[in-house]
Amino acid sequence: MSITLLSSNASFGGWHKQYSHASSSNQCTMRFAIYLPPQVEQGHKVPVLYWLSGLTCTDENFMQKAGAQAAAAKLGIAIVAPDTSPRGDDVADADSYDLGKGAGFYVNATRMPWAKHYQMYDYIVHELPALIESQFPVSDKRAISGHSMGGHGALSIALKNPERYTSVSAFSPICNPVNCPWGKKAFATYLGDDTSTWQEYDSSILISKASKHLPMLVDQGSADDFLHEQLTPDVLTSEAQKAGYPLTLRMQDGYDHSYYFIASFIEEHINFHGKCLGLASKAP
Amino acid sequence: MSITLLSSNASFGGWHKQYSHASSSNQCTMRFAIYLPPQVEQGHKVPVLYWLSGLTCTDENFMQKAGAQAAAAKLGIAIVAPDTSPRGDDVADADSYDLGKGAGFYVNATRMPWAKHYQMYDYIVHELPALIESQFPVSDKRAISGHSMGGHGALSIALKNPERYTSVSAFSPICNPVNCPWGKKAFATYLGDDTSTWQEYDSSILISKASKHLPMLVDQGSADDFLHEQLTPDVLTSEAQKAGYPLTLRMQDGYDHSYYFIASFIEEHINFHGKCLGLASKAP
Repeated sequence: MSITLLSSNASFGGWHKQYSHASSSNQCTMRFAIYLPPQVEQGHKVPVLYWLSGLTCTDENFMQKAGAQAAAAKLGIAIVAPDTSPRGDDVADADSYDLGKGAGFYVNATRMPWAKHYQMYDYIVHELPALIESQFPVSDKRAISGHSMGGHGALSIALKNPERYTSVSAFSPICNPVNCPWGKKAFATYLGDDTSTWQEYDSSILISKASKHLPMLVDQGSADDFLHEQLTPDVLTSEAQKAGYPLTLRMQDGYDHSYYFIASFIEEHINFHGKCLGLASKAP
Repeated sequence: MSITLLSSNASFGGWHKQYSHASSSNQCTMRFAIYLPPQVEQGHKVPVLYWLSGLTCTDENFMQKAGAQAAAAKLGIAIVAPDTSPRGDDVADADSYDLGKGAGFYVNATRMPWAKHYQMYDYIVHELPALIESQFPVSDKRAISGHSMGGHGALSIALKNPERYTSVSAFSPICNPVNCPWGKKAFATYLGDDTSTWQEYDSSILISKASKHLPMLVDQGSADDFLHEQLTPDVLTSEAQKAGYPLTLRMQDGYDHSYYFIASFIEEHINFHGKCLGLASKAP
């Protein structure tokens, strides 16, 4: 495993860095960003929050716009922001913002030509954490969060792998992809017509079958244009209630789908994960 | 005076909004962004921090990347981020990132074709505050800050108009534009060959002649690629010392010219202005 440093910026006493590496899961060069808090330079192994971004994003959107570094620096949490799909000239793509590059949906594609590179589920769950934990001074304690398509990714991955994460949160997640336009389009393309294979990536279905409960926090803006057609948090809430899953889902009045919403509540999400990870803020 | 709302996002209990308006100074349609903190909805008239951005920026860079809204919301400060030049198809431009659109340098151009639209000094000092104070629930108490070209703008405007601002700060400002490549190129183009006219926009010259002292805070990253050739804070420090001007200039070890640097210290700048504006943070 080797990684190539692409950029480096001092940030809140720590470092924001971008790297590329050859991905065995996705069979292409992948880029990711990592925020290393100041505690790392003091010799501490820090836990990692994985952030999964939404449609059209790269590793850069969250690191530039969410303002998460302030709270991560206080608590001593590294943040890893992967890309949202495989990349490269030989990677299959679609002439659409919600399919192909920038829209991997955090699944393992089974249909060609997608299956050759679109193995984002394996990449996020296995390859990337193994890489991060071998290359950086981080512990094997992990949390996961994300926005929109990445909120779907964070919730579904945590529900399928509760032993790998201490906590999960999401902003405006696609809660029931098998029943919304974005999810149906992506799953039909990547997974094919057999909708039974879609269900293993649907958080509202997974939550109803979860054997282990993780702390789960979801924020959803009430003024989000995608709320009723694409995101449907009411389905997740309903399934969580039926299953007795301890979900905290907060409707945030007047907030939309943008990074202005994420920035407004990211400190609370970082603190939520920090508490679950056993970290105490130095701030009062 | 009329303004047109272009976008609106809930942010930290307040609102981020973008507007356009017909500018009499610049003879074109200008766009600006405003952050209105939650105190506005509680009926308070809040002071305004004007933020002047650097080369190539619009009203969006600071609002999306600096993370300033958190501290502004705590203290009850509005933030106004104007564009960095006139805009429009009939506005003179140059095939260069450091001249023309996106590079107004906060001066009143005197040479044609620039003089027709590039009146950014008058726009920032007079037209925009008059517009803001007539259209929003803000007081006439003002602070000013900026980055790089905008740091030059903030310092030079505050030094020329100390009665209009309670405090001034800057990140990585162009401290002595009459002696650096960016400044020489812009001033020669906008103001002509008579370098005596350049001096009224040079903070290191203005500070040596200042009759009224404002609280002034400057942060400069030690790893900034532009430090020695373009920014030269040592000249400003030297002139401030000679003049007995109470400048606080902090070299921040390892930080570069990016918004990762600005984000790391913007809370301290907001709190600095808040203190000068007589505001007390509700945070401990």
